[in-house]
Parts: sequence; C-alpha cells; structure tokens
Amino acid sequence: MSGDEERLARVALTWLTEPGTRAVYRLVRRLGPVAALDLLLDGGAPDEKLRAAVAARSAGGDARAVAAEAVERTERLGARIVVPDDDEWPARIEQLSDLRLPEAYRRVDVETDPPLCFWVRGCWPLAEAFDRSVAVVGARAATAYGTHVATELGYGLADRDWTVVSGGAFGIDAAAHRGALNAGGMTVAVLACGVDRPYPMGNAALFDRIADTGLLVSEWLPGAEPLRPRFLIRNRVIAAATRGTVLVEAAARSGAAQTTHRAIALGKPGMVVPGPVTSAMSVGAHELLREYPKARVVTGVAHVLEEVGPIGELAPVARGPQRPADLLDDEARSVVEAFPRRGTVAVDVLAARAGVDVRTTLRKLSMLEELALVVRREDGYRLAPPPAGRATGGRAPDRDASGAARRATD
Amino acid sequence: MSGDEERLARVALTWLTEPGTRAVYRLVRRLGPVAALDLLLDGGAPDEKLRAAVAARSAGGDARAVAAEAVERTERLGARIVVPDDDEWPARIEQLSDLRLPEAYRRVDVETDPPLCFWVRGCWPLAEAFDRSVAVVGARAATAYGTHVATELGYGLADRDWTVVSGGAFGIDAAAHRGALNAGGMTVAVLACGVDRPYPMGNAALFDRIADTGLLVSEWLPGAEPLRPRFLIRNRVIAAATRGTVLVEAAARSGAAQTTHRAIALGKPGMVVPGPVTSAMSVGAHELLREYPKARVVTGVAHVLEEVGPIGELAPVARGPQRPADLLDDEARSVVEAFPRRGTVAVDVLAARAGVDVRTTLRKLSMLEELALVVRREDGYRLAPPPAGRATGGRAPDRDASGAARRATD
Repeated sequence: MSGDEERLARVALTWLTEPGTRAVYRLVRRLGPVAALDLLLDGGAPDEKLRAAVAARSAGGDARAVAAEAVERTERLGARIVVPDDDEWPARIEQLSDLRLPEAYRRVDVETDPPLCFWVRGCWPLAEAFDRSVAVVGARAATAYGTHVATELGYGLADRDWTVVSGGAFGIDAAAHRGALNAGGMTVAVLACGVDRPYPMGNAALFDRIADTGLLVSEWLPGAEPLRPRFLIRNRVIAAATRGTVLVEAAARSGAAQTTHRAIALGKPGMVVPGPVTSAMSVGAHELLREYPKARVVTGVAHVLEEVGPIGELAPVARGPQRPADLLDDEARSVVEAFPRRGTVAVDVLAARAGVDVRTTLRKLSMLEELALVVRREDGYRLAPPPAGRATGGRAPDRDASGAARRATD
Repeated sequence: MSGDEERLARVALTWLTEPGTRAVYRLVRRLGPVAALDLLLDGGAPDEKLRAAVAARSAGGDARAVAAEAVERTERLGARIVVPDDDEWPARIEQLSDLRLPEAYRRVDVETDPPLCFWVRGCWPLAEAFDRSVAVVGARAATAYGTHVATELGYGLADRDWTVVSGGAFGIDAAAHRGALNAGGMTVAVLACGVDRPYPMGNAALFDRIADTGLLVSEWLPGAEPLRPRFLIRNRVIAAATRGTVLVEAAARSGAAQTTHRAIALGKPGMVVPGPVTSAMSVGAHELLREYPKARVVTGVAHVLEEVGPIGELAPVARGPQRPADLLDDEARSVVEAFPRRGTVAVDVLAARAGVDVRTTLRKLSMLEELALVVRREDGYRLAPPPAGRATGGRAPDRDASGAARRATD
C-alpha cells in the first residue's frame, strides 16, 4: 500500500465526513486510512448516523474521484497535503484524541479528534511553525482597544521568535497577524475553508502576505466553503497546535472564548486580556475568567511568555518607582513622616510626634541626613528639597521623590 | 471601675500608640483598658520599642488629660465614641485579632489588631451600618472609566439595600459614595484622621452629605492628622468591617489593592473590576488578579452580590440573544447551514451538502418549516426571510435572527 494511496484515502475520508469525527479517526487508527475508506464506502460505518452521512455525501459524487481531483488541485495551487507520516506533521495535534469536554453535547464538543490531514500553503515546515507558537484569538467586531492590544501582542511575540497562530477573521485575528508581520515574524492562519479561497475576501492581501512568509493551513479540501460550524471545529486545531491561547476580546457566546476553553481542557495556558467592563466586546473575556478558575489574566507579551515560555522567562512584577523611603525601617519612616512639610522642627518635638525615643530619633536623623532626605539646621532639622528637576510641577505631595511628604491619601 | 473610665482609657491608649498595635490590644484583652493604660504609663510596656514609643508620646502631653479633652471635644462635635461594650460595636471587626499576613514585614502588615474604639459621626448605629456592607475602593487618580464604574457600583449596591463603605479620597472613594447617595442609600466613610477634619478638604461637601444620612468613622482622636501610614492602617478596618471588598482601579503599589489583600486574608471575597490593559490605573487591579488566585473578577453589581450576598442572589450568566437555531439538534442545524443564502434548493442537493440522509432531511425540513425558518417552494426549499424589523440594516449574516446564515466567521 503506497503512501500516495494512503494520502488519497485520508483526503477522501475528510471529504466524506467532517474533520474531527471520532468514529472515523478511531477507524483510521485501527485499520489504516485505505481500509477505513473501503469500509465506510461499503456501508460498514460503525454507527447509523455516520452511515447515513456517508451515504448522503456519496450521493453528491465519488469520494475517490473527488479526492484525486483535490490532490491535483492542491498541486496546481502550489500547496501541499501533510499527513501523519510526513516529517512536518505537528505531533502536538494528536493530543486532541484525548480531549473529552465535560460540557459535550453539540457535535463540535464531541467530535474533537485530530484532523486526518492538513492542507498547507507556504514554505515553512508545519511542525516547526507550531513548535514555539501562541494562539491570539478574539472578536471580529473588535474595538480599537482590542485591535491595538492584539497588534502589540502579535508584534511582541514575533519579535521574541514566537509564531503567532490565529484564524483569518477581521478584528483580532487580522490584528495579531499584522503585528507579527510588522515585526518581520512568522504567523500562521488556520482556516475553516479551502486554502485556495481564504475567507473573508476582505483579508485577501493579508492572506497573501501570510502565505509569503508564514503559513495558511486548513483541514478542508481546496474549494471547501466556510460553513458556520467549521469555524468551531477548526478552533480545536488552534488550541491544540499551540502552547497556549490568548483571548483578546470576546462578546458573550464567542467562538474565540471556545478556543480558549479548548486550550484549558487540553491542559495548556488559557490566557485572557481583560478590558473595560463597559465594553460589550469584553463580556466574553470576563465571563471566561469567572467561569474557568484556571484562566489567567495577561496584560501583555511578558505575561504571555511567563505562561507559555520555558522556565526563566518571568515577567517583572509591576511596581511603582523605587523611592529612597522604601529603604527605611519603620522608625526612620515614622521620623520622616512626622516632619512638617515646610520649616524646621526641633528633635524633641519630632520624637514626640513620631512616637520614637529621642536617642533613636537622633540616630535615624543622622542616617536620613546621609541619604540626603533631611537637612540639619541650627534649630533642628528640615526636609531636604526635592531633587532638581522634580521641584516644579503640580505633583501631589505623596509622589514627592523624597518620600517624605507628610500628608498622603488612600 | 466605671464604663466612662474604661472609655477614657481606650482613648488614652489610642493616642499613646497607633491603632492596631498588637501588644497593646493583647494587654487590653488581658488586663482591661484601665490597668493596661496604668501599666504602659508606668513604663511597663512588654517590649522596648513600645516602651520607647509611649515615653516619646508622653513627652508631648499627659495621656489621661489628652483623653479627657478628646472626650469633651467629641461631645461638642456631636460625635460619639463607640467601644466594644456598646451595642453598636461591630463584632465583625474582632476578626482582625486573628489576621496574620504571610508577607508581614512592615508595621502596617504586623500591627493589624482591632481598634480600641471608634469615633462616629452620624445617627445610624455602627454595627447595623456595617452588617450588609461592601467596600468599594480604588485609586485617587481614577480615570473617567473608573469613576463611572464606581458610581454605578455605589448606586447599584445602595439600591439593593447594601451599605457602601470606602475611604474619603478623591477618585474611586468619592465616586462610590456619590453613587450610593444618589440612590438615596447609606454610605460610610472610614477616615484616617479625626472625624472633625475629614481629609481631603475638597470633599467637604461630600463628607457633610455622608454625615447627614450615613456615617463618618475613624479610629483616631478628633484633630488627628492624616499622616501617611494611617491610610494603610485604616485599610484593615475597611476590609474587616465589610462582607467583601471591590477594587475598581489601582495603580501599581496601591493602598486600595492592599485593602483587597486584607479582605482575602480575612477569608472574604476580594473582588476586582478589570480595565483596559493600556491604562496605568488598572495595573494594580490586574496584578492582584494574577497574584491572588482567590481574587475574583466582577464586572458589575450582580457579580458583587453573587460573591457577598446570601445564597440565591446569583448573577445571570452573560449570553447572547436566544435564537431559534439554538433549539435545533445537530442534523437540523446541518440542514439549515447547508442552505444557500439566496434562492431555492432541491432536497437531495441539500441532503448531500448537509451530510444527512434524504429521509432525515425531509423530517428536519418539516420541523424547520414549522419554526418558520424555511419556506417550501415548488422546486424545493429556501430560507425564510428575516423577521420584519430585522430585514434592513447592515447586519452581518451570522447575526441574522433566523440563525440560518450560511457563512459565519470566527
């Protein structure tokens, strides 16, 4: 049995039954694709529903002939068919054969097995493209905020040699790809239709750029239409092929949120960029954070890499600027905080206000003088003026670089 | 020993040592306030640091005389001192005596015991005010977004008979109080200075409105200044007195985020309103969500009540509009999705495209006709036109109320 015959059988099976169908994947694993195809075409499908589906599809054409034509068409397009025996088959995708969703009741939640083959446009080997990759997904009707964040993420990931993976939709998908392309990086669009007719047409120029330097990938035959359920079927591939999924904006009932669930169900980081609670386009993102305790808030590429990257790529914790006052112990801090904002104060008055004994107060004052936070005068001490360049402007006193402001607020 | 003498001793102890000091609270619990005061004034504090602090403060005046003057001043103000023996003492605040913070290294993280007494302005009994209460805290330098969200939360909570508790700062604090007042509800400002000189002055009119219908509360003597560390000391009261804390906006290093930690450490809901990741005023909120797995995302009052309210106050899960197509099984959905957007299609063509056998297709079509989703024609079926009122406008096909649009996107 030649490799070409097997490849042809996989194409025929993909056409006969939607990708992901569990019973078909099992049959192929047990019998190989050629025998599995023979069995199905002979009416031997293991359940009645599948048998009916095969019969109905077969009424529209001969599966083997359709497959042969698809192989030819693929070659004419300059595209290729990738099967599990090929070196570039992305092994990670096989995780899908273990995926069982607790909330499974619709076809897309049950039939989540791996694809039988991929169509690929672009030079890059598929497995390599997916190796160090992160999915960036979200709403089509993205806001300017979401588009900005997705572009920044795409740019930042590509800039650090990560592949960006997304769909081909307007909004977040397109913004993530554009960000990666602008960084001169690699990006992969996983389509829910044939690689010869990427949808939507409005992104045609973007798809051409992606095919030039990255990849267009699909589990459907050339010419396949972007039927509605295919987007949800496709999402499992985006979740499984990558090391983690970032959701940027999502309305309620979002397909992109579904991709993020899939990633979490596969044991991968499901990351969510929060947004204004006043925005309908962030409702799905916030619901996901509420419903999935494992979902992680990320606010930028550093957080994403902390989740998916090798150990050591830790994002710095957000902090305000370091201030000299941060170095002080409690007593020194109390002394500084007991100073009047202006004028000189006697040591005993300061000690009483600070609740620190006089000797300790003197010791702390000498240290504070050393740090240039206070100045000694004949009749006591006063706060040092703020460093040059910070002395002007309407800064709130508590932002004062000396850390010595007396009044502060919540 | 009279109640007045004990009250006086609590006031004197509060002046001698900052509220929250663990050693003082323990001493009072062991000896009672009068004997504890005697011991401290006789130089018998249990540790040297406290002994030094008492001596330094005593150098500035006689503690008993200061206390007597404070009691008189409180009466002149029309305010009152509330101690644990009073009916209106909020029992929940005693939880603070069990609070141990893992990250304790600064005074405000170690000295977190309950106040010895409260100063209160306003008619409402303190315990009753705190009973059904939620803290709404956040940044002073709030954005228009944060101010809007805090006002809505304050309004929504008050409207459902919850007390809003916050500090007295500009920004989120003031917005939460205003929202509650606008709903004709109760609101409590917990101050870090004397109740006679609420800080900041710019909120004077707001403080007057709060004192009229709600409460101004402080653990410091009248005349006490809003020294910087007092805000952080005060925060433990906001966290402990309420049933949960909502953080609306916070920069990195935020005091309001500290209040939310305190709530979580006390085993209460620590809730966070997310915001744009591009906003510096949401950095602290998002960091809190990342660092404290127990912190919960909330986007509005319904989520807050779900966290703090009695069982039964569950927020509805956010959903898109219900569509007839939601009711369909997989086969009926496949049939609908196989329709061309325009024109009529023959049953056998439809069955082949849908991957459903002809008999089943006919059965589903009859149901779809019943649901007014498809229309029978002489030469087959076509999609029903969208309902009146939805037929116009540039709606994306997948938003079509019939749920029958063929092309959909990610």
